[in-house]
Amino acid sequence: MTDVAVIGASMTRFGERDGWVRDLLAEAGGACLDDAGVSPDAVDHLYVSNMASGEFEGQTGVPNMLAHDLGAVPAYTQRVDQTSSSGGAGIYAAWQSVASGASDMTLLVGGEKMTHRTTGEATDVIASLTHPVEYKHGVTLPSFAGLTARAYLTEYDAPREALAEVAVKNHRNGVDNPHAQFRKEIDTETALDSPMVADPLRLYDFCPITDGSAALLFCPVEVAREHADQFVRVAGVGGATDTHVVHERADPTTMGGVVESGRQAYETAGYGPEDVDVAELHDMFTILELLQYEDLGFADKGAGWEDAVEGVTARDGAMPVNTSGGLKSKGHPLGASGVAQGYEIYKQVLGEAGKRQVEADVGLACNVGGFGNCVTTAILEVAE
Amino acid sequence: MTDVAVIGASMTRFGERDGWVRDLLAEAGGACLDDAGVSPDAVDHLYVSNMASGEFEGQTGVPNMLAHDLGAVPAYTQRVDQTSSSGGAGIYAAWQSVASGASDMTLLVGGEKMTHRTTGEATDVIASLTHPVEYKHGVTLPSFAGLTARAYLTEYDAPREALAEVAVKNHRNGVDNPHAQFRKEIDTETALDSPMVADPLRLYDFCPITDGSAALLFCPVEVAREHADQFVRVAGVGGATDTHVVHERADPTTMGGVVESGRQAYETAGYGPEDVDVAELHDMFTILELLQYEDLGFADKGAGWEDAVEGVTARDGAMPVNTSGGLKSKGHPLGASGVAQGYEIYKQVLGEAGKRQVEADVGLACNVGGFGNCVTTAILEVAE
Repeated sequence: MTDVAVIGASMTRFGERDGWVRDLLAEAGGACLDDAGVSPDAVDHLYVSNMASGEFEGQTGVPNMLAHDLGAVPAYTQRVDQTSSSGGAGIYAAWQSVASGASDMTLLVGGEKMTHRTTGEATDVIASLTHPVEYKHGVTLPSFAGLTARAYLTEYDAPREALAEVAVKNHRNGVDNPHAQFRKEIDTETALDSPMVADPLRLYDFCPITDGSAALLFCPVEVAREHADQFVRVAGVGGATDTHVVHERADPTTMGGVVESGRQAYETAGYGPEDVDVAELHDMFTILELLQYEDLGFADKGAGWEDAVEGVTARDGAMPVNTSGGLKSKGHPLGASGVAQGYEIYKQVLGEAGKRQVEADVGLACNVGGFGNCVTTAILEVAE
Repeated sequence: MTDVAVIGASMTRFGERDGWVRDLLAEAGGACLDDAGVSPDAVDHLYVSNMASGEFEGQTGVPNMLAHDLGAVPAYTQRVDQTSSSGGAGIYAAWQSVASGASDMTLLVGGEKMTHRTTGEATDVIASLTHPVEYKHGVTLPSFAGLTARAYLTEYDAPREALAEVAVKNHRNGVDNPHAQFRKEIDTETALDSPMVADPLRLYDFCPITDGSAALLFCPVEVAREHADQFVRVAGVGGATDTHVVHERADPTTMGGVVESGRQAYETAGYGPEDVDVAELHDMFTILELLQYEDLGFADKGAGWEDAVEGVTARDGAMPVNTSGGLKSKGHPLGASGVAQGYEIYKQVLGEAGKRQVEADVGLACNVGGFGNCVTTAILEVAE
């Protein structure tokens, strides 16, 4: 297979934005091509990670619009949907398009426009991914998060504060991210005193509703070498499912899709968790960051909360997690989130992360769809 | 890149069906695995071609449901959407997943459930793929078809009957397809006297609203050789866009996406149109069959209608087109259609097409999204 590189990255400001998703996609897509110094007519394949433009905006066929808006016609286009992990699935699809030899220049743009709908309408669209019977009984994603958090705290004798520390850390990181939706620190007390949503989880355990877009540009490593002295290489990638019915899982504190997609990514990269310098994990709910941290092997099962409390996952810790601010403070425009994780790792391993910079040659991004229903993991590294 | 084979195929009966799209997908997916004699737990990647389960049924995350229903967890899943050409895009995605080395066994299942909605509701969902300004002016897909048909008939001095002959031929072929929605012959007069829809096109120039699903199973050619004495090889594949705004195209009687995706498919296969023995073309409207027939090089521009009138494209003609009955009589469940085209070519080149059988070692499938907005072309051939 062809060795795959990433030679450009961009993201829009996340938050409440005007316009339609096509405008956000065009903003990120155009900026990504500019970042790489690549002309739109050099793009062979154009993938759009988006969960629900039809439901949110009544507009489908958005990839074809984007090909038009960027001036990339007749590039092949396709929408990649894997619910909340559509962005990570886009990374996998873009990697496959170059690795298979089908494309020499693949642009991936992820995006979602959600804030023009009420929070109820937006969460109804998201809830449509759950199992119909679970949905009928009111067990939506926040409910699963609450149940899982309770199981985790009980099983591993973890303090409630550990979850709050995840939110506090990610808000602190978001302050230094000019693209983040929330750029304000919070303290542990604020998190612990915020309104209850799904016991034991409170408002600050949840990511917001967000508009935004992010983009990455992929090509063969040999093309990247002609392009720049230093670039990013896709060292490993993987994807896997877990049961659609959440209660069928043997252990509610483990996500099988995370374990399996991580195993594939590590195996293709020839790396283990000890080789990863920085990670972006899918903290749609604070409890999810702990679960992925453990399921990807950064800590033993049930011990991840200690690293959160002791600052190991902070920016100046031994294993920094969500230096971007994570979904918690950066925001979670569904189709964009996995691509934006890739953006952060891209910037970190190239040493271009500004105030958020940590020491990193190798980084990992884990994007979770549904409640661990479908997961992708990618490992990126700096290369020459 | 890894050479890619197809070792199994299935499709459900197309028409008005009970249940949800997940039921149809599970029916086709399960039958495809049975057809190949492959166990669900051997599936690495599972792609679902579907345009709009969210809009039609209020259900998203369908690929994860299907992984569950088939017993394929933890196979990686993803939804492939390219509006009405989602099925062809699925073939391209499945090809990439095997060609890149990411998967040794990829199941593609396309499907759509539409008939539980009114025709107005269903066409509204389809119309959401058009450009907002064109939509606002009422220029939806049937309108484009009418305008294009008028331009074609005028420009190439073609008789109105030529379009009717496409419908008559495809209805005749559909009689022998047990999966087809309509299994009745029509005569030229019936087509010409049917109610006007978009001048000069009448009711019998249009495909129906349909429920259904189809599936194909992909693996490396070397795995296929261990599996069976004879199998199908993906000889070539390609995909391309044309302008999203239809009136920006230089020649309304040519679809640039068809030309370019065909060029890619021919180039990767090392074949030309003269090497193709049978073709499935996207006859959502009768005029589209003529356009693709010419744009893929089976006739000179403006001469395709003569082949339709003279029976060249009939089952006993020199270049049989839509032996399945095409979208016209087989039906058009959006995400399933491109996969079902692949099913027909698979059966034809293996000599398993029953009463519809023609002499064919090499076949081509062309799947069109929107009004030529995005197109995929695949060339399949029998192999040992």
